[in-house]
Amino acid sequence: MTAVLNDTDIYGAVQHFYAKQMQALDSGEFTDYAATFTEDGSFQHSPGAQPALSRAAIVAELVEFHKRFDGDPVQRRHWFNHITLEHQGEGTIKSTVYALVVTTRPGGKPEIAPSCVVHDVLVADGTDVLTRSRLVTHDQMF
Amino acid sequence: MTAVLNDTDIYGAVQHFYAKQMQALDSGEFTDYAATFTEDGSFQHSPGAQPALSRAAIVAELVEFHKRFDGDPVQRRHWFNHITLEHQGEGTIKSTVYALVVTTRPGGKPEIAPSCVVHDVLVADGTDVLTRSRLVTHDQMF
Amino acid sequence: MTAVLNDTDIYGAVQHFYAKQMQALDSGEFTDYAATFTEDGSFQHSPGAQPALSRAAIVAELVEFHKRFDGDPVQRRHWFNHITLEHQGEGTIKSTVYALVVTTRPGGKPEIAPSCVVHDVLVADGTDVLTRSRLVTHDQMF
Repeated sequence: MTAVLNDTDIYGAVQHFYAKQMQALDSGEFTDYAATFTEDGSFQHSPGAQPALSRAAIVAELVEFHKRFDGDPVQRRHWFNHITLEHQGEGTIKSTVYALVVTTRPGGKPEIAPSCVVHDVLVADGTDVLTRSRLVTHDQMF
Repeated sequence: MTAVLNDTDIYGAVQHFYAKQMQALDSGEFTDYAATFTEDGSFQHSPGAQPALSRAAIVAELVEFHKRFDGDPVQRRHWFNHITLEHQGEGTIKSTVYALVVTTRPGGKPEIAPSCVVHDVLVADGTDVLTRSRLVTHDQMF
Repeated sequence: MTAVLNDTDIYGAVQHFYAKQMQALDSGEFTDYAATFTEDGSFQHSPGAQPALSRAAIVAELVEFHKRFDGDPVQRRHWFNHITLEHQGEGTIKSTVYALVVTTRPGGKPEIAPSCVVHDVLVADGTDVLTRSRLVTHDQMF
């Protein structure tokens, strides 16, 4: 029997889910990152971008995006803050989260930019959380 | 019947409360922000300021404060970290939280300042959390 | 009877533990900080450093480290993000956490550096969490 998360438990479960998801992304484990989305997951890293519409497409998008760092070693870390959750129909959860990207180069100090908001739809399947769709908006675009 | 939060649940409930409270503030929804305080709530945004002593006074204080951004569009976001909670008498909770203000202007990179500490007294009424009083101290003032 | 934390509760307990541990460190309460380690706790603040191998050694290490701030008043705050926990044998938990150090001087704006990763082994004894070992890696060293 798989226990279903209650409202109290889901908040911690989502925090832990995001921690694992972002550590995978920042470690360059793009397949692991894509596996945190549903099979038909949608990932749109900025409002003007075409959304990637499957796990394979998400991996391809990330490989393409990271080509800009070829020959420019960086350690990027995506920080999250202030997760708000709102239950929607059909077992989905609307999640709105602040994000900052921390980028460090060898010997340097971290650059902290941009400031973003992550707009997710999550699904909680038993005790597992997955991202069904993600749109990231950027504070400097307004 | 309204369940009362136990010690384990309260930590997540306070995190979610702060997330909603700060997203309201940063969206300019000052009435929603004020509604996260008790009716007789006290809000003092720096040690030298006069505290606002009701929800209406909190709204007025925020409207006044934000006049400095007239003609200077900014997106401000208040980040929180390391919430510590300590139960006090009469169902109140002392909460001490790190805060950083992230300010972004169109096309620019975020400025991250000041570094603050939020000193709250919270009340947990059933599953609802409210701020009874808030004093914000600033790290650069010492 | 002391309740043992279940998997759901442990995530919030670890967050609160870290909040109290870091507020103690940043307040200069080094004895309180050392008391958050097990009696035989190991603390290595960077990969090249000798680990401090007891609570007394941790206090001595911190006193020595902070001599650099004699005559240079600073308020340092260690921010944490994205805690991932992995159960290991013998009741220990591997914890991997992002960290940023926020340093503010009187009248100044915070400097946010370095970006680090905290690699902990935690032990959960009933409802108490303690750090058995800590190694901190720095993003700019690569």
